[in-house]
Amino acid sequence: MSGEDAPAQQQNAVEQKQDTKPAEEPKAEPPKTESAEAAATPAATNEKAPEEETFIYRSLVLTGYGGYDKVKLQVKKGKPVLKAGEVMVRVKVCGLNFADLMARQGLYDRLPSPPVTPGMECSGVVEAVGEEVTDRKVGDKVMVLNRFGLWQEVAVVPAGHTFLIPEGMSFEEAAALSVNYITAYLMLFDFGNLRPNQSVLIHAAAGGVGIAATQLCKTVKDVTVFGTASASKHEAISQGGVTHAIDYRTRDYVEEVRKISPKGLDIVLDPLGGSDTHKAYNLLKPMGKLITYGAANMLAGQRKNLIAVAKNWYHQFSIHTLSLIQGNKSVCGFHLGYLDGEMELITQAMNTILDLYKQGKVKPRIDSTWHLEQVGDAMRKMQERNNIGKVILTTEPMPEEEKKEETKKEDKKEDKKKEDKKKDDKKKDDGKKEEKKDDKKKEEPKKEEKKEEKKEEEKKEEVNKEEK
Amino acid sequence: MSGEDAPAQQQNAVEQKQDTKPAEEPKAEPPKTESAEAAATPAATNEKAPEEETFIYRSLVLTGYGGYDKVKLQVKKGKPVLKAGEVMVRVKVCGLNFADLMARQGLYDRLPSPPVTPGMECSGVVEAVGEEVTDRKVGDKVMVLNRFGLWQEVAVVPAGHTFLIPEGMSFEEAAALSVNYITAYLMLFDFGNLRPNQSVLIHAAAGGVGIAATQLCKTVKDVTVFGTASASKHEAISQGGVTHAIDYRTRDYVEEVRKISPKGLDIVLDPLGGSDTHKAYNLLKPMGKLITYGAANMLAGQRKNLIAVAKNWYHQFSIHTLSLIQGNKSVCGFHLGYLDGEMELITQAMNTILDLYKQGKVKPRIDSTWHLEQVGDAMRKMQERNNIGKVILTTEPMPEEEKKEETKKEDKKEDKKKEDKKKDDKKKDDGKKEEKKDDKKKEEPKKEEKKEEKKEEEKKEEVNKEEK
Repeated sequence: MSGEDAPAQQQNAVEQKQDTKPAEEPKAEPPKTESAEAAATPAATNEKAPEEETFIYRSLVLTGYGGYDKVKLQVKKGKPVLKAGEVMVRVKVCGLNFADLMARQGLYDRLPSPPVTPGMECSGVVEAVGEEVTDRKVGDKVMVLNRFGLWQEVAVVPAGHTFLIPEGMSFEEAAALSVNYITAYLMLFDFGNLRPNQSVLIHAAAGGVGIAATQLCKTVKDVTVFGTASASKHEAISQGGVTHAIDYRTRDYVEEVRKISPKGLDIVLDPLGGSDTHKAYNLLKPMGKLITYGAANMLAGQRKNLIAVAKNWYHQFSIHTLSLIQGNKSVCGFHLGYLDGEMELITQAMNTILDLYKQGKVKPRIDSTWHLEQVGDAMRKMQERNNIGKVILTTEPMPEEEKKEETKKEDKKEDKKKEDKKKDDKKKDDGKKEEKKDDKKKEEPKKEEKKEEKKEEEKKEEVNKEEK
Repeated sequence: MSGEDAPAQQQNAVEQKQDTKPAEEPKAEPPKTESAEAAATPAATNEKAPEEETFIYRSLVLTGYGGYDKVKLQVKKGKPVLKAGEVMVRVKVCGLNFADLMARQGLYDRLPSPPVTPGMECSGVVEAVGEEVTDRKVGDKVMVLNRFGLWQEVAVVPAGHTFLIPEGMSFEEAAALSVNYITAYLMLFDFGNLRPNQSVLIHAAAGGVGIAATQLCKTVKDVTVFGTASASKHEAISQGGVTHAIDYRTRDYVEEVRKISPKGLDIVLDPLGGSDTHKAYNLLKPMGKLITYGAANMLAGQRKNLIAVAKNWYHQFSIHTLSLIQGNKSVCGFHLGYLDGEMELITQAMNTILDLYKQGKVKPRIDSTWHLEQVGDAMRKMQERNNIGKVILTTEPMPEEEKKEETKKEDKKEDKKKEDKKKDDKKKDDGKKEEKKDDKKKEEPKKEEKKEEKKEEEKKEEVNKEEK
């Protein structure tokens, strides 16, 4: 499959039957979906229609893999039927995550095939509870964590996937908290075992996980945080707790870290993958932990960039146990999306994070709030790394004047698409250039690796000789 | 080089000049060495001889890579000169470690080439202190940790490599504590981040590290310990704290663990390497940690077994980051021998362990004590896995009647060598058979691995297709 565009009839479906898939298993009676435009005048059919007809809500649907325009706002009809243990949440705010961007390009296997509603975190109010739900009631303000299906006005999830919003926390903060802070928490304190006086490298320190990780580092005494971000974000991340801000666009971050911490680092959080994972490994001190949690390097341009993907595969880090033993090092992989089954662990982490929030030690930073109609622009801002903190969507209806603005923008969409195309093409070219540059750079770290492997090889040679 | 036997003139050297190498750097004036037999009557040269002649001590020397008889008892002459920061210790008891066995076969690169004195831990009394040593004084009872050079009556080490023996701890316990307990402690509590209610698999649970790890697990609430050992040792390890003892010789330990803990384990300590590392990885729960700390599977027979070594290389575990991410798993390598530079970390761990000892929560278990003359038998006991707990050497002179016994044994040595040869040959045959058996068994775990890799490959294929 090309992974580019879904068939046209799917993209423009009106009254198309569709599974909402908000919870783990498909609903027995999926509500109907139609395009947002077609449902603009629901009052017309409102008179004595059954609840299936009157209960309508807007939903973002990934209609096929590709660019920003592949996520479309549609209207679903029909009240979802709750199974035992489930709750229905009237969604207020949704969080955007890097995995959502990967998913749109077909690079994230935890999202079912399109058409499907993405979204792994949101905040809202409980509107209905299913049988056997004892700890949630109608009216509870909750934050929600789910594998997908939360970018819509109404979401149905297992009650165990909701957490009560503490007093004083806004819906915006609540939607921005779960994925980033649980990810940062489990990486730093479960795999990383962070302790006083240690040093941590945080890539994309102005991103959602980056800001969460920085704040969590500061809850431990005398932790040195190295954070990478473009220069314009340095003031913000420094204020947020980063000890040494490094502009990865103009500096070699490995050199910068070595200047300050010649022995290396205790923990490196690596969302980049590819050759950056090798650099991270070489930066570790004895007893150091490398925690890799993504492959952001794969994401170049708004559509799947084959050069970037292939490059990431080519450079994918692979490690032998003997090298780990001789270096006294640890390599860990983390992704919250693959931790579905571990709600107990997640709940424990969440409770600790909420305690820290109440103590004023952590606080999500919101970069920008967008209407559901603007999801494309919201994704673009994140993917182009123009955000400082969390990008969120609100389900609040868009004011009429803004809508008019949007329509004007729509007219300009063709221009924008052309612009995007240009950008993408440029990125591809850059990718090729970068690759060449990278190959040269690689030689240096390779030398270091070779040093480490030399001993192994010497042993191998000895064995070989003896076998002869 | 063959790695089998050192040249004959080195083995039987009398009055041979030799570097003691107890500390990191060679001594300026190495004491002279002679064979223990030649120095049996030192009183004869004692009259008015300079200190270089009168100061003599016995030392075990690895004279070449090979069998148990390659470690020979020799006599060194001349008082070592202390550098600033060093202390001289009159050694009472030495500990044996698995790395010493690997080293004898030429499989451990932290020991310099023969002739060299092995031994990475001992206990004794400070006999002299160098300049700038402020926290040790003559008469202090200490335990010592060093990269090598401690299997002798007199050892010179940096003062920072010594720890005061707490009241109530015998020299035997003190010699048995450092390597095993620091190893177990750093694996479980630094890399492993062990917490209440977790589950741990400990291989060779009756060995030195196994017993230390079991005791340390029991210091944490409700930890379930799976321990492998041959059936005859089950009573002992169960009393020591193992929850589920598994006879790895008659049972498939993976199946046994799955029966009790279907979801898998939080931590696996893996001293075996090779195909057992793969099994360990597959046994991990999400957020689970595999800590590999040796390649005991390489050790088959008393001389380097090329089949076992090659098999271990062939099966050596190598892991891709994508698999770690999708599994939420951690792979760590540990070896105290490569942690020389980290004395601060080691001292912290040691202090915690000594606190636990004082609280009665940990206590080294001594399997057997041997005279320096018996080092071969001591190594054999450990290598043939007939020990429960630590095998140690005492520098106490051997009583005359025992010496006579030993002499009788010496006479039988030729018979023994023949016996050993037979054993080794049988092991090699077994190795070959085992290999065939193993290849069959391997198919099963491989299937599991393939499942995990399938997704990756599918993605790769997708990329390939698209590139076409």
